[in-house]
Amino acid sequence: MDKEGAGMAEETECMIDKNVGMDAENVESSGNGKEMRAVMLAGFGGLNKLRVTKKVMPELQDGEVKIRVKACGLNFLDLMVRQGTIDNPPKPPLVPGFECSGIVESVGKNTTGFEIGDRVMAFVNYNAWAEVVCTPAELVYKMPDEMTFAEAAAFCLNFVAAYLMLFEVANLREGMSVLVHSAGGAVGQAVAQLCTTVPNVTVFGIASCFKQAAIRDSVTHLFDRNIDYMQEVKKISPEGVDVVLDCLCGENTGKGLTLLKPLGTYILYGASNMVTGETKSFFSFAKSWWQVEKVNPIKLYEENKVMAGFSLLNLLFKHGKCSLVRSVMDKLLCLYEEKKIKPVVDSLWALEEVKEAMQRIHDRGNIGKLILDIEKSPTPLMASDSTETSEAGEEEEEEEEEPEGDNDSKERMPFIH
Amino acid sequence: MDKEGAGMAEETECMIDKNVGMDAENVESSGNGKEMRAVMLAGFGGLNKLRVTKKVMPELQDGEVKIRVKACGLNFLDLMVRQGTIDNPPKPPLVPGFECSGIVESVGKNTTGFEIGDRVMAFVNYNAWAEVVCTPAELVYKMPDEMTFAEAAAFCLNFVAAYLMLFEVANLREGMSVLVHSAGGAVGQAVAQLCTTVPNVTVFGIASCFKQAAIRDSVTHLFDRNIDYMQEVKKISPEGVDVVLDCLCGENTGKGLTLLKPLGTYILYGASNMVTGETKSFFSFAKSWWQVEKVNPIKLYEENKVMAGFSLLNLLFKHGKCSLVRSVMDKLLCLYEEKKIKPVVDSLWALEEVKEAMQRIHDRGNIGKLILDIEKSPTPLMASDSTETSEAGEEEEEEEEEPEGDNDSKERMPFIH
Repeated sequence: MDKEGAGMAEETECMIDKNVGMDAENVESSGNGKEMRAVMLAGFGGLNKLRVTKKVMPELQDGEVKIRVKACGLNFLDLMVRQGTIDNPPKPPLVPGFECSGIVESVGKNTTGFEIGDRVMAFVNYNAWAEVVCTPAELVYKMPDEMTFAEAAAFCLNFVAAYLMLFEVANLREGMSVLVHSAGGAVGQAVAQLCTTVPNVTVFGIASCFKQAAIRDSVTHLFDRNIDYMQEVKKISPEGVDVVLDCLCGENTGKGLTLLKPLGTYILYGASNMVTGETKSFFSFAKSWWQVEKVNPIKLYEENKVMAGFSLLNLLFKHGKCSLVRSVMDKLLCLYEEKKIKPVVDSLWALEEVKEAMQRIHDRGNIGKLILDIEKSPTPLMASDSTETSEAGEEEEEEEEEPEGDNDSKERMPFIH
Repeated sequence: MDKEGAGMAEETECMIDKNVGMDAENVESSGNGKEMRAVMLAGFGGLNKLRVTKKVMPELQDGEVKIRVKACGLNFLDLMVRQGTIDNPPKPPLVPGFECSGIVESVGKNTTGFEIGDRVMAFVNYNAWAEVVCTPAELVYKMPDEMTFAEAAAFCLNFVAAYLMLFEVANLREGMSVLVHSAGGAVGQAVAQLCTTVPNVTVFGIASCFKQAAIRDSVTHLFDRNIDYMQEVKKISPEGVDVVLDCLCGENTGKGLTLLKPLGTYILYGASNMVTGETKSFFSFAKSWWQVEKVNPIKLYEENKVMAGFSLLNLLFKHGKCSLVRSVMDKLLCLYEEKKIKPVVDSLWALEEVKEAMQRIHDRGNIGKLILDIEKSPTPLMASDSTETSEAGEEEEEEEEEPEGDNDSKERMPFIH
């Protein structure tokens, strides 16, 4: 059941109405003061918990960089934050978002390596979806001259995650094979590109049917997510694959472990199957946790298999592996400059269109990355229902169905390629 | 409760009595015929299930090498075989043993790379503890000239396992840290030596108290197995270790995972805690399996951790990774010839002393490898009880206690260094 799609256009319009005067032009003037536009999550739940509001700018701390944001990355994880289906989320209201690109506006005391005017991309521990972001300098990276802000906002999280999983956790080498779920997503596309940097790597991609034409060339073998992919993989490679990258969890964990060759590595790096479209988030999360099949280490021993978990955000914000990530970023920027990798941007959205963008990622309609473009004006909508009075605390999504990959819904969305 | 030590001397004596005429001299003549001496396991259970008997020599098959055995390796796994606490053991009676060294006596059709008279070491899928062994050529490796047969029998399983775990599964690199249980055992000593081939690797070893003086120099930090090693490791390295190598299982799995740094790897490569000293083997195995705490993949995701299982025997005999193992053996033999690694041999035993040898490894009395030396005569024992009539199907071990590391028991055992 997918309840999220309903009433979206009305909400977006309503949001714009409420924030009249918050368009790109006025932002410039408000930016000179102490206020900024930001996406605010009022509480965990459905799309209606999101608003664009004015907010006091963050104060620059020692060791931080203040960035005038140009573009922000939107990840599946942001949906899980919205629903509260992540471990220990901060208490709302909060500004979501973990990555952005922009221009350095000022640098804090004891901050070295950056100057005002530098074009940068950065990780942020929440608060990325705003016009101004402050984040520790160790999480900020200079952008190559030829990189656009949209590309930069699509670069950090997905490529660093893909690189660390393939080369740090799974130790990908010549001749190996990789199975990746959501091959059309931003991580999937990053994985596919990084696999081409190693000779003779076979990539098995799984993606929704309608994406197949667009991403067929990015992987070696492409399967529809609705078929029995285990059987298809085994037809091609009876002994299985060396690496499975799973962002879905649930039954795919068992399937992934089964598909591994001896000494192969299964990596769980997300749990998007936990997002059910419902908004009873905590219970849904707890239920999913218990429904995940636990693995007996003796089974791994007998089968010579490796099971790993990977969360880049925890690595950065809980486990403090910033210098490791910087060394990875250096390697990735070399690969970018050698034109061996290039982020795939699905679409650009105004802050006010965050709900539509989120719906698109929820429906897995995207190919590559969704970007919130700070300077973009929302696509005008027809004036209609202005009596919308729903409260943030309520669940007003209707029961209407919006089929995954619905073409009407896609056509009204902005694409940049 | 340790019931295995009791009645050992009597049994050995009895075994020699029963096999009168089976000493090294007579073996030579029997070797020219179709019979050979071998250790036979009559059924799963205690030490009394083992006998030295005459047995028809194996017939050489296509692609195989026939080896006149000089020395065999004795591993903890052989105890588990004896007890039946391994997965899918063959039906007894069987000849145990997975590795040996010796001289090529003949080569089968379609066997290339070996000539009669070659000094070799080999893996065998059971049947190693015999005077003559046939095994596929892909599992046979030429010995360096300077390597003794005892060293060769101590080399294959432990060094290949240690190498694959450190470099294939865990991807050990400069500056990392490794925790190894049973640091005084043959794998532990191989791990410690291989770690010295990488710059700046810290090795935390855990071993029985009485071994500490002997192995202190082989590791960076050494802890007594009876203390709270987690606390001790955290005192030295508060953020934990990069690699945990665990051959014990049980509660050490949870402790090992907890001790890992982010992106660290826990490898279970044995389950010696399953060997209880009792002989109700199957139930003990089943019970242990269920008692092992299963791991939620989402926990690994949140903590950025890797859990692996490693069984070299399954890799070789179930998963057919012979060419990988050969490439590892090539690297190991280079390291041996560069004098960077050298197998530690604990002691040599006659076939007729296999029970005492097994008791020693059960009691974890060994430092390094126990070797069955085919040409060695058993240490003479005093004539005493010749009325011993116990049946192989019964459990006659008495309830006498033989404390772990008992000095009297150690003193009567043969050491070669």
